[in-house]
Amino acid sequence: VKRVPLATLVAGVTAACLLGSLPFTSQAQTEVSPIYGVAIPEGYRHWEFIAPSEELGKLDQLRIIVGNDIALKAYRDGTRPFPDGSIIAKVAWQRVPSAVDDRALGAPTAFVPGTPNIIQIMVKDSKRYHNSGGWGYGRFLNGKPTDLAQHETCFACHNTLARANDFVFTRYAP
Amino acid sequence: VKRVPLATLVAGVTAACLLGSLPFTSQAQTEVSPIYGVAIPEGYRHWEFIAPSEELGKLDQLRIIVGNDIALKAYRDGTRPFPDGSIIAKVAWQRVPSAVDDRALGAPTAFVPGTPNIIQIMVKDSKRYHNSGGWGYGRFLNGKPTDLAQHETCFACHNTLARANDFVFTRYAP
Repeated sequence: VKRVPLATLVAGVTAACLLGSLPFTSQAQTEVSPIYGVAIPEGYRHWEFIAPSEELGKLDQLRIIVGNDIALKAYRDGTRPFPDGSIIAKVAWQRVPSAVDDRALGAPTAFVPGTPNIIQIMVKDSKRYHNSGGWGYGRFLNGKPTDLAQHETCFACHNTLARANDFVFTRYAP
Repeated sequence: VKRVPLATLVAGVTAACLLGSLPFTSQAQTEVSPIYGVAIPEGYRHWEFIAPSEELGKLDQLRIIVGNDIALKAYRDGTRPFPDGSIIAKVAWQRVPSAVDDRALGAPTAFVPGTPNIIQIMVKDSKRYHNSGGWGYGRFLNGKPTDLAQHETCFACHNTLARANDFVFTRYAP
């Protein structure tokens, strides 16, 4: 039996505990977007919602946009630009009809979330992302980042259309 | 200057703190639904989402369905019936087109939340609501409960169409 000095054991356990408390612990975190190195943030499914939205064209999605506590505070206080550390996630599902809701409503007009679809992330870090308005972008399909060409379009579009709201499209649902 | 004994002061501060921590503190809480006496729950805007949905007919709504911690745990664990204390809130807005999103997408296909609309609440209390599947219902328009006739329809419809899911229509978004 190998004997381990107590000090070594304590140091090892401490290191293991510190590692265990790091925010990035899942496999998904190793997949980051091109250009920006943005990952799907741990725990986003527990974040507060900012607003719903939908896209009835070829994307055919229902979405919920959520944010971390820093982003939600900025939304509620009206703080612009968003502070560093703000993260916003647009979570999309395919729209599918709901037969049971249609029966309740008496018409074929109800839709609910089907297959999980695209997740889009914005991370505010004014130093790291100073060339793109202070935001890093990540677009994920089935948990994997989409390609370089898609990520080359993010900032140009946000810069053209959403600059007045610190490059963010989503408004807080009233 | 009136002198207050220290014990009285401590008791007073303690009572004030206890009152401050009660869940029902806003004016809105005094407005409850007919039949069930259900109020709009304090803090629902901070709850985690269960799913989005939409209704394209005469209601013309985007919705986010949220739940308190007890309801969310039951959803994630697949616990049915939902435990007492579960609260589910369906928050609806009028659907409105988004000109800026349409420009980003290149087609008039994007919708976002407009005016806040109906809020519908389900509260699980298997004793108090044993005549309606253990759930109390509340339907609110502009923060005011809708009428008796509307609330007379809640349980009949949930009982017919959603009994297999403990009378709840909404499924956890995958």
